[in-house]
Amino acid sequence: MLMNPAGSNTVPPDHPRYESLMKRSRLISGFKDGIVVPEGLIAHGRGEMFDYLLGEVTIEPASISERAAAAFMLNARMPVISVNGNTAALCPEGIVELSSVTGARIEVNLFHWSEERASAIKAHLQRHGAREILAEGPDAALEGLHHNRGKCHVDGIYSADVVLVPLEDGDRAQALARMGKVVISIDLNPLSRTSLSATVSIVDELTRAIPNISRFARELGRDQKKIMGIIREYDNSRVLRAVFDYISKRFETLARE
Amino acid sequence: MLMNPAGSNTVPPDHPRYESLMKRSRLISGFKDGIVVPEGLIAHGRGEMFDYLLGEVTIEPASISERAAAAFMLNARMPVISVNGNTAALCPEGIVELSSVTGARIEVNLFHWSEERASAIKAHLQRHGAREILAEGPDAALEGLHHNRGKCHVDGIYSADVVLVPLEDGDRAQALARMGKVVISIDLNPLSRTSLSATVSIVDELTRAIPNISRFARELGRDQKKIMGIIREYDNSRVLRAVFDYISKRFETLARE
Repeated sequence: MLMNPAGSNTVPPDHPRYESLMKRSRLISGFKDGIVVPEGLIAHGRGEMFDYLLGEVTIEPASISERAAAAFMLNARMPVISVNGNTAALCPEGIVELSSVTGARIEVNLFHWSEERASAIKAHLQRHGAREILAEGPDAALEGLHHNRGKCHVDGIYSADVVLVPLEDGDRAQALARMGKVVISIDLNPLSRTSLSATVSIVDELTRAIPNISRFARELGRDQKKIMGIIREYDNSRVLRAVFDYISKRFETLARE
Repeated sequence: MLMNPAGSNTVPPDHPRYESLMKRSRLISGFKDGIVVPEGLIAHGRGEMFDYLLGEVTIEPASISERAAAAFMLNARMPVISVNGNTAALCPEGIVELSSVTGARIEVNLFHWSEERASAIKAHLQRHGAREILAEGPDAALEGLHHNRGKCHVDGIYSADVVLVPLEDGDRAQALARMGKVVISIDLNPLSRTSLSATVSIVDELTRAIPNISRFARELGRDQKKIMGIIREYDNSRVLRAVFDYISKRFETLARE
């Protein structure tokens, strides 16, 4: 049983909206713990709407990009997972697992930066088993961004060749792409600047996407031939077109019903 | 100049996202003032996404339903405007104006009910010029709903023949429809249970929709023939179909670009 956000009653696990309500509840807890900002709650609502249009499942094109994400991360010289408040609140165990499977470093990056929030997020991830985390004291900046917006770590995304940016802001994703990095986004809006500027655009819900990438990474293991084959054949604009088509059709189906 | 939600810098009025950022800012202020709940912020995000698909303008079918809303309210024996936290935070002056133009009573109705929040919302509306407001001490319940969810006033929506429910929950909207009332919804999701159960479904953003209804009501005045003609000819399922078509086409256009 899950405490309902209002706190007054509970949601049974067989409730048709259980998954969605549980995510909201995690996010609101994160908010109360100083991990999530109000803007993060609004952003989550935007994502919910697109997930609803996807039917709240991992669609085939998303699965293709999740497999490519695993290949890029396994092939990287220095992969980094960039974690913000919403990501930490929604999927801490998934992030820790993915980091361990792919050898990617975890770095806390916040659009609404504060040292306190970075610490709170770090502590939250540590409670879920994370060891090394870059958080407080950013010592570098993404090129072309304003002071607060670009903060990061030299030993994190600044030097990384492959960055996974779940739920990332468009300006930051574009800055990373301009810096020549392989950018893997997780964003339910296929039309966002983040999705449109990424090398690999995963249009899927975070708590489905992250474990999927881990699963693909485990399956690929050290099979370098397979990994290189996936990277070579991956076509992101084809994936995005397939996502657009899927959502268009699904919207028409919903409207007909 | 508008304070950015983060508080650290400002958004100039010519910023392309000014309107949207200003709404977020109002909502986050409302949240800090105890008017808006975290769930309200998430719900706002869902709406933002649909408004984005509408192109952030009042589309033709919405305008038709706004005109019908004005006619139904002017023709009512006892029209009531039901106001929740998000509505109060986003559009207090618009609500007060619409109440005065149509003679509709204002009632505070909350999905996440608390006496304190009802009081805070009442005070907020009063600061924007509202006089009589039903808020604390609900003395009735909508039929078929659980205790907290159905709270309302005998002299409010319980006895009303026409109710305007901006940003309303699906269960409550359906309960009002089952009680035989004319339900006018304002909801950016044309597929929500609220939109699908309403008599008049306005698929438009709140701060555009409310002033539009006031404008139509002023134009109609006491022209009873015109008012009855609009009510007779109004076809809600046709309006909803037109909205679906519009969004489908717009999504395809966005995807092609």
